[in-house]
Amino acid sequence: MTSYDKLKQIFHEAALSSDIAGILHWDMSTMMPKNSRENRAEQLSYLSKIRHQLISSPNVGKLIENAKEEKLDNENSSNLIEMEREYIMSSSLPSDLVEKLSKASAKCEGIWEEARKKSDFKIVEPHLEELVKLSKEESLILADKLHCSPYEALINKFEPQSKEKDIKNIFENLEIFLVPLIDQIIQKQSEEKLISISNLMTVEQQKEIGLYLMKSIGFDFTRGRLDTSQHPFCGGAYQDIRITTRYNESDPFSSLEGIMHETGHAMYELNLPEKWKYQPAGQSRGMAMHESQSLLIEMQITRSKSFKKYLSHILKNKFELKNECWNFENIYKIGTRVNKSFIRVESDEVTYPLHIILRFNLEQKIFNDEIKIRDIPELWNQEYKKLFGKEVDVDSNGCLQDVHWYAGLFGYFPTYSLGALTAAQLASQLRLDNINLDDQIEKGNFTELLKWLKINVHSKASFYSTNDILEQVTNSKLNAKYFEDYIKNRYL
Amino acid sequence: MTSYDKLKQIFHEAALSSDIAGILHWDMSTMMPKNSRENRAEQLSYLSKIRHQLISSPNVGKLIENAKEEKLDNENSSNLIEMEREYIMSSSLPSDLVEKLSKASAKCEGIWEEARKKSDFKIVEPHLEELVKLSKEESLILADKLHCSPYEALINKFEPQSKEKDIKNIFENLEIFLVPLIDQIIQKQSEEKLISISNLMTVEQQKEIGLYLMKSIGFDFTRGRLDTSQHPFCGGAYQDIRITTRYNESDPFSSLEGIMHETGHAMYELNLPEKWKYQPAGQSRGMAMHESQSLLIEMQITRSKSFKKYLSHILKNKFELKNECWNFENIYKIGTRVNKSFIRVESDEVTYPLHIILRFNLEQKIFNDEIKIRDIPELWNQEYKKLFGKEVDVDSNGCLQDVHWYAGLFGYFPTYSLGALTAAQLASQLRLDNINLDDQIEKGNFTELLKWLKINVHSKASFYSTNDILEQVTNSKLNAKYFEDYIKNRYL
Repeated sequence: MTSYDKLKQIFHEAALSSDIAGILHWDMSTMMPKNSRENRAEQLSYLSKIRHQLISSPNVGKLIENAKEEKLDNENSSNLIEMEREYIMSSSLPSDLVEKLSKASAKCEGIWEEARKKSDFKIVEPHLEELVKLSKEESLILADKLHCSPYEALINKFEPQSKEKDIKNIFENLEIFLVPLIDQIIQKQSEEKLISISNLMTVEQQKEIGLYLMKSIGFDFTRGRLDTSQHPFCGGAYQDIRITTRYNESDPFSSLEGIMHETGHAMYELNLPEKWKYQPAGQSRGMAMHESQSLLIEMQITRSKSFKKYLSHILKNKFELKNECWNFENIYKIGTRVNKSFIRVESDEVTYPLHIILRFNLEQKIFNDEIKIRDIPELWNQEYKKLFGKEVDVDSNGCLQDVHWYAGLFGYFPTYSLGALTAAQLASQLRLDNINLDDQIEKGNFTELLKWLKINVHSKASFYSTNDILEQVTNSKLNAKYFEDYIKNRYL
Repeated sequence: MTSYDKLKQIFHEAALSSDIAGILHWDMSTMMPKNSRENRAEQLSYLSKIRHQLISSPNVGKLIENAKEEKLDNENSSNLIEMEREYIMSSSLPSDLVEKLSKASAKCEGIWEEARKKSDFKIVEPHLEELVKLSKEESLILADKLHCSPYEALINKFEPQSKEKDIKNIFENLEIFLVPLIDQIIQKQSEEKLISISNLMTVEQQKEIGLYLMKSIGFDFTRGRLDTSQHPFCGGAYQDIRITTRYNESDPFSSLEGIMHETGHAMYELNLPEKWKYQPAGQSRGMAMHESQSLLIEMQITRSKSFKKYLSHILKNKFELKNECWNFENIYKIGTRVNKSFIRVESDEVTYPLHIILRFNLEQKIFNDEIKIRDIPELWNQEYKKLFGKEVDVDSNGCLQDVHWYAGLFGYFPTYSLGALTAAQLASQLRLDNINLDDQIEKGNFTELLKWLKINVHSKASFYSTNDILEQVTNSKLNAKYFEDYIKNRYL
């Protein structure tokens, strides 16, 4: 057996342990009885430890050096590069730190649920403090290895090869572009008349329609499920994709659009190349690319005029919702309504980047040791005021709204907006390559759309970098102008 | 760190991997999309491998020898004995055989579901053949280690220290006792008038009542759940107990009694001593003791006159089921009706042992190489005819009805009837110790019952053998006369 073959076996086992953790995590968020949280945390921490021991063993380092001397074709060479990247990220951290992080985040996430319910940051503060302390240890170790700032090191866990400085630049320009534009759009939309859809679609109907849309777009229910959780996500295991949503009768489209968003993630996972199952290069690319797939489906498709025509048609004819509020013009307006919301996941695509910029700015300060955990609520509210010109009322609408920090996911937020920019860039090419796209979507035919995504993104897995994929497909690296054009086009 | 402390750590990790597998197995039977079966099989097989490597390493053998020289109190000494038992059972089997068994059984179980649905043994035959081949390898290795017959070695996986010969004796006598008695009871009951309850309780109502009964008896839903699966079971992880049932509108009590049965298993698990969490001596005793707990709740309690009075009362007053069929006399008669059923899990407590004797006899023949897998359907039907005097119509009512063999669980069946005998023996003492038991049950008060079980059985975990526990509680080793007296008392 060659060194490379031995590596393949090791990474195969590591992927199995991640998959197992994926199912346990899904169960924790959807099914698990509440008093099992501590035991579940220990199970997840044990799986992290197994994975960490597999990938970070000095033997893996030696095998990688040997494998570099072995004759490998292009694909296997790419796989070896991804193996080495994972090895570096993983071997730098001592086992007990990995275990502590996993335990602390599972614990903190549980307590966050209660804190959020009670809108009381104090309940979770000491747990977040502990988690940040451990994450700082992690960030310093990784920064040293990757020769970058501690915060950039954390971002690289989710989006390899990204630069804090580039992101900062993009975000500063986006802020300048968006802040005045948002007031302009809100002013323009204030003249539109909307018919409320609030409380006109039951949870049962939302669920049924959500499942119908998932089927239409091609989600394969023999390889995945839809469930309910407090914070929507796409998780599970290889070819066993579990997406979740939450239902709100006063805002029925929040669940439907959430479902489409997670379905975008899911289709990426389901279309990864089977030949590279359980190998690093066979996984989805970084989180920005992943988010581009969910946002492409949610924003570029689900909120388009053609999709709303299709949706209006099925609401009226398939689900017998005859009220005029389900007219296409009305639901298009609702789906493109711009509002200064407190809640990131309920906000529109125009204000969304500002929510991310807020979190990015705070994360920078946390990992530059500029602020204390106890000051987060106040700083959050100041930052929100600055970007949106409004006061946050309660912390459940502020710093307690998202699970990420309380699950130890620092450096993750920026990938959402990088994903939005990537989605706009891909969608621009998609519409050039397929000029009948809107006709197809209006008829509920998503075959060509999914085929294009599979060929141009999904099947490429991690064989290329995000920027390489963008260059192959659009002849350009990531460029915010596609997003700005798209926003101006749709909203002005 | 002493050798014994090192062992505690190793067995703690092994227990974690079993717990993780418990959740994955529950998910596989209740939630998992159907095309994930092969990947799930690989995950479960990987967890088996991890557990096997932990427990069977030669280092564990050395640590056990060293720990025997260390000063341990009684409880820790018992724990060390259980560690050694697990080490012997586990280290005797080569890793690759364990992995093959796990994969083959997960695969076979999936195909069995289809075969059962189509009532076509041929579909699953080659997979069962492979699984039996591997189980025979296993049984030969264990038999050599334990100095017993191959089949006895398999039974010992589930009920340590049991003897094939003793079981054979008990079963031969039970057969002689039961076969004429059954005709006598059926004759006696033929004069009773029953009012049918068929199709008078919806699946929704069954579920609601099942949950209500679970709550009444003290099942803690912050540490467990109830779901639906094709084959009911009690599984999950430490203090996260997942029980399942299946619903049938034409036989509404089959789900309710199934739920009570699994609740009996669950209460045992939930009452194990917290101090011994994740240690071998802290686990439930063998499968016969486990089954005694489910059967004590299902048979001795749920089918008693006092419980039926309580049930009739809540059906009428709580669930508004006013039909006269829910009168206590009628539901008592239904719950103690003796019938020659094809299906083990739908059969009554009097005919039940004959179903087990059938399976025991076939298992003996399989592991003595006396029969071929392809002949199982015919031999099953012959054996059934001999015991029940009836012809089996289709294999889904015959050799395809139970998951056990198709999940690789050979040697498991006899523990069901050993459990019934144990339950009768324990219940006899329980009624002597608590003369007001029936009054309490009639009022829906199960506190004293559960307290007695916790003190006399649950809290003892694996610190004593099944026979030791029986002697402590009833002053007698396992004795079938308690069961025979109980059956004569209730049915003649």
